[in-house]
Amino acid sequence: MRKRYESATIALLCEAQQARSIRMRIEIICTGDEVLSGKTINTNYSHMARRLQEVGLDVLWGTTVGDDRASLVEAFGLASKRADAVIVNGGLGPTVDDLSQEVAAQAAGVELELHEAWLERIQAFYTARGRVMPPNNRKQAMLPVGSEFIDNPVGTACGFAIDIATARFFFTPGVPREIKRMFDDEIIPRLLRLSGTQAVVALQRFHSFGLGESRVDDMLQGVEALAPEGEVKLGFQAHYPQLETKLFARGDTQAQVEARLEPVARAVREKLGAYIVALDSDTLEAGLMAELSSRAANVAIAEAGTHGAVGSRLVAADTEASIFARGVVASSVGGLLQALGERETKDQSNLAACAISAANGVRVQAGASYGLAVLVDVAQAGSGWVYIAISSVDSSISRAACFVGSAERARVGGVEMGLDCLRRVLAGLSVDDLVDFEKHNT
Amino acid sequence: MRKRYESATIALLCEAQQARSIRMRIEIICTGDEVLSGKTINTNYSHMARRLQEVGLDVLWGTTVGDDRASLVEAFGLASKRADAVIVNGGLGPTVDDLSQEVAAQAAGVELELHEAWLERIQAFYTARGRVMPPNNRKQAMLPVGSEFIDNPVGTACGFAIDIATARFFFTPGVPREIKRMFDDEIIPRLLRLSGTQAVVALQRFHSFGLGESRVDDMLQGVEALAPEGEVKLGFQAHYPQLETKLFARGDTQAQVEARLEPVARAVREKLGAYIVALDSDTLEAGLMAELSSRAANVAIAEAGTHGAVGSRLVAADTEASIFARGVVASSVGGLLQALGERETKDQSNLAACAISAANGVRVQAGASYGLAVLVDVAQAGSGWVYIAISSVDSSISRAACFVGSAERARVGGVEMGLDCLRRVLAGLSVDDLVDFEKHNT
Repeated sequence: MRKRYESATIALLCEAQQARSIRMRIEIICTGDEVLSGKTINTNYSHMARRLQEVGLDVLWGTTVGDDRASLVEAFGLASKRADAVIVNGGLGPTVDDLSQEVAAQAAGVELELHEAWLERIQAFYTARGRVMPPNNRKQAMLPVGSEFIDNPVGTACGFAIDIATARFFFTPGVPREIKRMFDDEIIPRLLRLSGTQAVVALQRFHSFGLGESRVDDMLQGVEALAPEGEVKLGFQAHYPQLETKLFARGDTQAQVEARLEPVARAVREKLGAYIVALDSDTLEAGLMAELSSRAANVAIAEAGTHGAVGSRLVAADTEASIFARGVVASSVGGLLQALGERETKDQSNLAACAISAANGVRVQAGASYGLAVLVDVAQAGSGWVYIAISSVDSSISRAACFVGSAERARVGGVEMGLDCLRRVLAGLSVDDLVDFEKHNT
Repeated sequence: MRKRYESATIALLCEAQQARSIRMRIEIICTGDEVLSGKTINTNYSHMARRLQEVGLDVLWGTTVGDDRASLVEAFGLASKRADAVIVNGGLGPTVDDLSQEVAAQAAGVELELHEAWLERIQAFYTARGRVMPPNNRKQAMLPVGSEFIDNPVGTACGFAIDIATARFFFTPGVPREIKRMFDDEIIPRLLRLSGTQAVVALQRFHSFGLGESRVDDMLQGVEALAPEGEVKLGFQAHYPQLETKLFARGDTQAQVEARLEPVARAVREKLGAYIVALDSDTLEAGLMAELSSRAANVAIAEAGTHGAVGSRLVAADTEASIFARGVVASSVGGLLQALGERETKDQSNLAACAISAANGVRVQAGASYGLAVLVDVAQAGSGWVYIAISSVDSSISRAACFVGSAERARVGGVEMGLDCLRRVLAGLSVDDLVDFEKHNT
């Protein structure tokens, strides 16, 4: 499923292009008491707005209202005047709280009528699960007269579109899995047609570790101009300690989009170089597992001060259940060394040496190809030291860094750096490139 | 800091009570391109709305607009007509994008003027960090004439309040740490005064594992009525696999609030009984660490199929860095037994026996007081088996459960059940109480 919504290239072909306005004004109305009261964090909104931006459309206005008739009527009325396209999310369920169809019909000045085909689909949905459709669900097949049906292959709430005043309204279900699917498959193509923007869009993503957003922004000055005829846009999304660099491209055909994207993507790859940890929907840890698997190698982990996150990340990515040999986690470096059978004779004040000892220890104990140790020491407020070691049969490599900011930043940054060092070792890259989050010796 | 915002009882004393309306209509306007475009998930909104509900106030309308003058003017105008109180979040920064003060002054029909005292505070803020205030920041001390200053002890963006039409507008900073502090300390007391609601409020929270929201809702029917003179409200927040049951109470004095809360809280404790895993801002894992610490005991963990989450949760809660002795995580049960020195002679198809063997093995290997093993087997689509064992010097206890739903639900549910079983063992409770998420034998 994940792949589906994050795939590198989404091609949307339009049958017709009818320009509605120079810049289509889009509003998103989120409905429901759970969202209005803050009980549910509104991730549907951010998902939809982000996806729109990725295809070159912008949201102008966001509205949140509860399951309340008067508020819905007012919200639909206001949106119909200030927007060209309105996405309404939620309120399509089977209960009396769910008012979207009713208020849509009222606002459009039409009645509701039964959509027979959808009622049959709901009944089939229940039958396939060995249950009888509760009578309530019939309500989900009542659509405003003259509305356009929008399919929902993964739930019982279908979508629909209808004009209210001069705006086109798109009604969508509130269940995250359902709206994500419907948004990509049904809503975005309709919005692109409506906006008359170029018909094929593509998104390419570069995940990097070690470079801050403003630094990358500087480094990539001018790359957009490398696209013949333009139409490639650069964007960033920082989720510390990784940064996502995105390229959005548009064109009339797939070949044109690829031709526009290619020189820009090449420049991004060259400039970010060894800092790129994954592309598109791949992750750093999945890449590590794939690389180890291709060498018939495996890895064992020893960690302290990391909240066990190195092992958690890797074991979750181990789809073969054989690449991640073992993880040993302890609260303290002393506890970790003891677990690995390393005696008290080690000088624990020398944490760099302890990391090497732990990486060797866990590799040998597990009989693994690689041992990775990550020790994070956040004893000092406002900064944290990170000690990383990677051991293999013939060599061991280590890296230390002082992260500035909070203990949490050091911990999270240290875990990422540990995984990144393993990636660098496997790729034959240096582990010594400085990262923006560490204190540099001047 | 965390304690500050989640403390069980927040007492807010009002100097005066001026009723503004039977039910105050509150609107939240979130501003900023990052929130509008979905780049930032709007957690400020949900935080504010939830805190309002916790003190008995409701949000009627939510608006999101970008850093755009025309949108801000329109949003302030609409809100001033439909709400009694409006909270505007964001747009108080030093850059030209930040328009909140300017548009507030325009909407209120007044000029901006320098707030000398705040300018001095900003300068002192920079001086204390060994830096000189950039000239831009002067803008943050420009407030609309006649507005009420609102302090921000943790940042350079002060808040302010001003009337626009018949609504009271409260302007607040967008930085999460700053708005959280200002909201509790400054905004909520002002809103309570404005609403004329009773002056002292309290919140009590019960975290449970194993009971679904609708089940608890049924079990607690009528408990609100146990409060003398009412004024105690029951609420829920489900975050699978835990459920949070909340009691909100209001009154004129602290003593009155406590008297109202006490019989209701007692009934909740009795009815949820052994399913309660923590109270208020405590967590299950912190409770386990405190209990083990009080017995001078420690624990070692062995886990497979859990993504290492049992160890991660416990080690993160081990503030003494000595109660969590060791965690061993593997991708497979075979790998786990091998890491614990248990030979291949074990019958791995008998996962219940493997769990006991793993719990014993890790306890003995670590020399710990308790060994906890959690094995999750999600081989079958749509369900997952969970095997838990707890070993101590004199006994071992085990528990198995089949979780229904996705593999992810089984994994997350199994991790929680593992921690909960340890809590039950330490508290002398049975580990066999059925949970709502498992398949029951009929």
